[in-house]
Amino acid sequence: MSNPRIYDLKANELYPGFLIKEVNKSLGYYVKKYKESPDILKEAIKYSVENSGKRFRPILCLLTAKSLGKDYRAVLPTACAIEFIHTYSLIHDDLPSIDNDDLRRGKPTCHKKFGEDIAVLAGDALFAEAFNIIIKYQIADDRTKIKILEEIADASGASGMAAGQIVDVYFTGKKISKKKLEYMHRNKTGKIITASVRCAAILCGVIDDYLKKFTEYSENLGLAFQITDDILDVTSYKRIAGKTIGKDAIQKKNTFPNIWGISKSKEIARDKIDKAIAVIKSMDIDYKWLVNIANFLLVRKV
Amino acid sequence: MSNPRIYDLKANELYPGFLIKEVNKSLGYYVKKYKESPDILKEAIKYSVENSGKRFRPILCLLTAKSLGKDYRAVLPTACAIEFIHTYSLIHDDLPSIDNDDLRRGKPTCHKKFGEDIAVLAGDALFAEAFNIIIKYQIADDRTKIKILEEIADASGASGMAAGQIVDVYFTGKKISKKKLEYMHRNKTGKIITASVRCAAILCGVIDDYLKKFTEYSENLGLAFQITDDILDVTSYKRIAGKTIGKDAIQKKNTFPNIWGISKSKEIARDKIDKAIAVIKSMDIDYKWLVNIANFLLVRKV
Repeated sequence: MSNPRIYDLKANELYPGFLIKEVNKSLGYYVKKYKESPDILKEAIKYSVENSGKRFRPILCLLTAKSLGKDYRAVLPTACAIEFIHTYSLIHDDLPSIDNDDLRRGKPTCHKKFGEDIAVLAGDALFAEAFNIIIKYQIADDRTKIKILEEIADASGASGMAAGQIVDVYFTGKKISKKKLEYMHRNKTGKIITASVRCAAILCGVIDDYLKKFTEYSENLGLAFQITDDILDVTSYKRIAGKTIGKDAIQKKNTFPNIWGISKSKEIARDKIDKAIAVIKSMDIDYKWLVNIANFLLVRKV
Repeated sequence: MSNPRIYDLKANELYPGFLIKEVNKSLGYYVKKYKESPDILKEAIKYSVENSGKRFRPILCLLTAKSLGKDYRAVLPTACAIEFIHTYSLIHDDLPSIDNDDLRRGKPTCHKKFGEDIAVLAGDALFAEAFNIIIKYQIADDRTKIKILEEIADASGASGMAAGQIVDVYFTGKKISKKKLEYMHRNKTGKIITASVRCAAILCGVIDDYLKKFTEYSENLGLAFQITDDILDVTSYKRIAGKTIGKDAIQKKNTFPNIWGISKSKEIARDKIDKAIAVIKSMDIDYKWLVNIANFLLVRKV
């Protein structure tokens, strides 16, 4: 089986391959910013950020701007800042004391390559620099910029990603309720995915009802993303995923397949995607890209 | 020998004991904000933030505002945000893969109390929430607020605290140059101390030459702070310091006493304090508190 081309939905006028290149170019620009930093930190940042993934979150951010008829470049710095946060969260997530992963996207994880101490601190640096990218490079009026920074802080902090991660590690090996499982996923993965959409929408001037609809779209998308991630951990192959597969079961993680079974999990993911698509289609925007990226989640192999 | 009262310089009209109480009250308010967060995260945040230290950075922030004739409450949220960042950095610093410390202020470190995974993530959450405190609670116009957030991001990121920490861990066991040692200290400890002063000054409307003078004051102060910290690690007692003493030598850390000897290190610290005091006395402000807190560094026991 060949490695599937991600988002290759050219037939539907979507060609995010171009956008991925744009994101990578822009990320490459930011990682070269730290000229005064210690070499090992620069290397760890570059290595981790450039270890090319799907760029799902920044692409989602860019597509949201496109759906509103805006140039994707209007939100590119924020898209890159969100990828910085995603990268930092993966570095910490992979640490021996958390998920203890040796492989990430087919390459040694940051701590395997640079040592655990450097990995903790490189993650910390990336988090700070995510805020810096928005502060220094995102063009927006001051009020809007503060709103974006607040979205990012909320999505990653004690009521966001960190909260979801804590539930994940704390309840590993202990069975949790379906409600708690959803709380965990909504926070661990969902909040940053929601921020990717909301930040782009806010930067494009969206408020009130439409912002609510974008939020509803992205919350369903975020949950579907994590459910399909859980499913892939059971069904995928190391060669394709580029990371250790089947670890959730070995580590006794609370996952959707674990609690609901694979078949029901797929059904829930399909339902979330249907809801996401229904809400986005109810809006007077150019929604095709956001429909496509939602459908992509159900067929993704990595 | 009794535990010395910190900043107890009442004779000089300074009574920061009151300010410490105000900072602690305010920190206590913020740590109660995370009602929706997982219990273990709330506990880890509360435990780490309330494990009362000197509150050197927030007090410095408040005293800067006082020196400019402003009410300390005008900068209190930012002072608390800086203490959140300091707390997060200590949690990560104490981790087994970094300094491997069991004690902090006389109590088990966060990872000893809650586990290493929770400690990494609680630190991450505190960092995000530091930004949130400024965004949500600091009263300032939008432009000024963004400047403050930038000061914080710069001071803690890849050209600030994280950079200094990386040099520290990377060169542990290897001898470094005096220049590199100073770079390490200026970044690891200095930048956040400088941010404590600069943020208060910016919030009080200080610009140009006066901001430069405040920066020079705080840079000297920050370096003196770390030098005296290094000296205390050699000369203090566990009972007073509330942390493991003599670890720098055991871990073969690069420190001022290590590279310069104790006597010369004390001389350098004195020189930095003299410079800090000279610059602050050259300003048309109510400088006595900032002079006192500088002098305090040379006599501190913890």
